Amino acid sequence: MLNKIEHIGIAVENLEESNILFEKLLGVPPYKSESVESEGVVTSFFQNGPNKIELLMATNPESPIAKFLQKKGPGIHHIAFDVDDIVAECERLKKEGFILINEVPKKGADNKIVAFLHPKNTNGVLVELCQEVKHL
Amino acid sequence: MLNKIEHIGIAVENLEESNILFEKLLGVPPYKSESVESEGVVTSFFQNGPNKIELLMATNPESPIAKFLQKKGPGIHHIAFDVDDIVAECERLKKEGFILINEVPKKGADNKIVAFLHPKNTNGVLVELCQEVKHL
Repeated sequence: MLNKIEHIGIAVENLEESNILFEKLLGVPPYKSESVESEGVVTSFFQNGPNKIELLMATNPESPIAKFLQKKGPGIHHIAFDVDDIVAECERLKKEGFILINEVPKKGADNKIVAFLHPKNTNGVLVELCQEVKHL
Repeated sequence: MLNKIEHIGIAVENLEESNILFEKLLGVPPYKSESVESEGVVTSFFQNGPNKIELLMATNPESPIAKFLQKKGPGIHHIAFDVDDIVAECERLKKEGFILINEVPKKGADNKIVAFLHPKNTNGVLVELCQEVKHL
């Protein structure tokens, strides 16, 4: 079960400038900035009621975010849904015909384990599932 | 103040097929289908916890959704934030330097009045503000 939109991921070219922009839009500063080296990104997170906005800037040209920016320019990159049991949810969605980019969920930003669905089976939408890691 | 992500709008080519796809993804059927003639779209809405997913299909080639599909293909079209007072929020955001596509909020789908911010000032993200209409 997908509980809610956990966050929307937005690809940006300049994190410092976009932090200022989204602070003006959302009325709050980012509560966290975090680097995910395996993805070649640095992120910042804004709380918005029950949801979050994640800004993503590439740290190297091989980063998926660098490639996205080259192809599409800055904008919405993915939608992430909160789940209680990511393994069970991946199984359920595989049976429904969705294709997992990550057969095994992996560590993501903001204290989560995550898995992505391939956008070719989701109407062009890059969908992330994320489960909060407890007891760290 | 932006209270939460009210919905994510997703441009689709075939509403019937995408309804089936998103029912599989979200585990619930759409709760509403609605035509917005002024925008040249037919929509369907899925509840997801405190948030919604809105699918949008063009009903004529001049529709903004038809143009989006031609340019970018199916995928995430906009992010809509729930507000209590759309007039006050538009004023606040104008003062912050954002550009309103709709100087005067207009009637949208799902019992809302809405206004869009121009994506050139929002990091390429089409942002909608929406206020629920009460006492209809």
